[in-house]
Amino acid sequence: MTSLSVFRDVPIAQKLEGSLLKIYRQDDSSAKLFLAYKVCMTEGGHPWVSLVVRKTRLQIAEDPSLNYEYLPLAGLKSFIQASLELLFGKHSQAIVEKRVGGVHIVGESGAFQLGAQFLKAWRKNLKTVCIVSCQNEQCGLIFRDMGFTVYEYSVWNSTDLCSDPSMFVEVLQCLPAAYPAGSILVIGNISDCRFTKNQWTKLMSIIKSKQIFPFFDIPCQGLSTGDLEEDRKFLQHFVSLGFEFFCSQSLSKNFGIYDEGVGILVVAALSNQHLLCVISQLMDYVQALWGNPPATGARIITSILCNPALFGEWKQSLKSVVENIMLIKEKVKEKLRLLGTPGSWNHITRQSGTHGYLGLNYQQVEFLVKKKHIYLPKTSRINFTCINSSNIDYITQSIHEAVVLTEG
Amino acid sequence: MTSLSVFRDVPIAQKLEGSLLKIYRQDDSSAKLFLAYKVCMTEGGHPWVSLVVRKTRLQIAEDPSLNYEYLPLAGLKSFIQASLELLFGKHSQAIVEKRVGGVHIVGESGAFQLGAQFLKAWRKNLKTVCIVSCQNEQCGLIFRDMGFTVYEYSVWNSTDLCSDPSMFVEVLQCLPAAYPAGSILVIGNISDCRFTKNQWTKLMSIIKSKQIFPFFDIPCQGLSTGDLEEDRKFLQHFVSLGFEFFCSQSLSKNFGIYDEGVGILVVAALSNQHLLCVISQLMDYVQALWGNPPATGARIITSILCNPALFGEWKQSLKSVVENIMLIKEKVKEKLRLLGTPGSWNHITRQSGTHGYLGLNYQQVEFLVKKKHIYLPKTSRINFTCINSSNIDYITQSIHEAVVLTEG
Repeated sequence: MTSLSVFRDVPIAQKLEGSLLKIYRQDDSSAKLFLAYKVCMTEGGHPWVSLVVRKTRLQIAEDPSLNYEYLPLAGLKSFIQASLELLFGKHSQAIVEKRVGGVHIVGESGAFQLGAQFLKAWRKNLKTVCIVSCQNEQCGLIFRDMGFTVYEYSVWNSTDLCSDPSMFVEVLQCLPAAYPAGSILVIGNISDCRFTKNQWTKLMSIIKSKQIFPFFDIPCQGLSTGDLEEDRKFLQHFVSLGFEFFCSQSLSKNFGIYDEGVGILVVAALSNQHLLCVISQLMDYVQALWGNPPATGARIITSILCNPALFGEWKQSLKSVVENIMLIKEKVKEKLRLLGTPGSWNHITRQSGTHGYLGLNYQQVEFLVKKKHIYLPKTSRINFTCINSSNIDYITQSIHEAVVLTEG
Repeated sequence: MTSLSVFRDVPIAQKLEGSLLKIYRQDDSSAKLFLAYKVCMTEGGHPWVSLVVRKTRLQIAEDPSLNYEYLPLAGLKSFIQASLELLFGKHSQAIVEKRVGGVHIVGESGAFQLGAQFLKAWRKNLKTVCIVSCQNEQCGLIFRDMGFTVYEYSVWNSTDLCSDPSMFVEVLQCLPAAYPAGSILVIGNISDCRFTKNQWTKLMSIIKSKQIFPFFDIPCQGLSTGDLEEDRKFLQHFVSLGFEFFCSQSLSKNFGIYDEGVGILVVAALSNQHLLCVISQLMDYVQALWGNPPATGARIITSILCNPALFGEWKQSLKSVVENIMLIKEKVKEKLRLLGTPGSWNHITRQSGTHGYLGLNYQQVEFLVKKKHIYLPKTSRINFTCINSSNIDYITQSIHEAVVLTEG
């Protein structure tokens, strides 16, 4: 055997090197804190799991009647139906007309991977992807790898410290007209964008005239405002006007089933006939991507969504989580006020959801990371549920110092 | 909104139409039987699940100490380690030298999808995929979709009614030489190929001289002979000679966790350094494909593999399953002998594993499907565990009629 490896030209992948979490883990300081976890954390510093999920998981494991056969390629039917009803409402016209459907997908990236493969093959005129969000979205990587030209825009206005709907409208105005090539518009986390009616109308009209194909990301319905309906309200604008679109509906975070990465690629079409064609093509990609999807997460979620008592418990748990997040944000703001930290900190409580911008500049973030061992992204967008009673004083004091020391 | 759907050019996907299972389901006959299920069935006609799996599943659901955090991108470390030890043996030199590793994958297709993406990007000279197996392998679709030229060869010799190692050697001899382009060799189910030492040597020498990259498929270790070590023996030839290769190790069928589709893409490299580079690149693809893998299946399997008592129970259950398969095959053969069915039926018991060729021709298969409502593939390769005491008489009588009526 030759001693020359066939892998000799393969270098270590660079993207994963030097990630914030990696640097945090290598830090020996006992004071170190990580404020960028993806998931909702409890006061005790553990990933949050809805209690009703634990209960349901056990019930499913105890069920002797369950067989563990392969799921169909498209996934668990009852799971897809329940997820669509969660997203569009039980009495949604689109569901009644059977023009929305979905494919059970795997992981956080699965819906975008699957959707992008379809769009590349069947909507060849769409060459550009425009991602609009108030946060970094993972899906850019997927579209780029498939040869799309990807533009990413943040709607976080770092001067006014708010999610700015006018920035969204501006981005769309700059997109090329429909011909010769259209665009895919990924609409990420824009829940804090408070559109006026006028802005909505403008947005819709641009999307229509430029033949833009919307691809929504709904990563944690209910964890933004605590209200399941409120969190999907902007999607309604599109559904009611009969837009066709894709939507990545992830159900890992709002149930606290992070280790199962379960969700749906939702398809909205003009008619049931078109929907069935799209779903059948998607199934071909699924077969090549992973085959039959894993069942555990989907079974748990379906059991909860289809049982009114469990559903009520789950909704209540979402509400409590969000109330707790707001409490943490209030406390942080109040502590900064008491410390006399320069600036207004109202933007902290104006943002909804687990994550939000502290509104610090690079220099201030650098100070927190290097001097205080508090790890947060350069954007200063942190997970507020990483803050609890045992670390809030250290964190707010450190923010105070960062702001004061880097001033002038 | 325009009433022209953006999906108007998307037809129903053809590949999924008219599948055998679909036709079976549409058949109204009460006599209908389906002999092509993928999974091992019980006497009662349900998918087989190792009892120790049910027990472990429950224990895991009851464990209050488990948190449900995202798994790392590469998957559950202990699961990967345990799976590698299962495949190569606990004291394998390759494991000690840390030159074999793996990435936790999703579904039955995941390992091939991931491996193919890597090979396409990093071994650009490999343009041809040659799939050798005694059955149809799903992975051809994946390689084809990525632009590889795929050739599929069966080593089932329908004249001599056996898996024929000389056919394997012939296929490799016909492959192009290493330059300008090499080949990927997918080695599927060849467990019934009884190579002579001479044939092994020849095989190895061709693979070496033509710089062929082997990609093994180990879909159900232990379910072929009932002996975990026996079922991976041919892999040992490659490991001990220091070959570099990929291997899809699926663990859904041999544990009876079909609904979780869990496995590993195994990488064997010349050194740990090369291995780490390959794994790091694979992780980039994982991030885009599905992100963090689901945990349930991996947790169950790890618990069993790492606990000697549970491991013993599982090994015993594999042995019982395989003994039962052999018993079914013996009974089928004996019944055909008693019916005086023309021909020798020894090939039925010469084949190992759940599936095997009946050795019928197209006309005979057609007769079974059309006249007897017994659904089996045109190749006559059936799942013998679909045969049980309540249907064996009908099946053997029907085979008898098929052979007699279509003779001459």
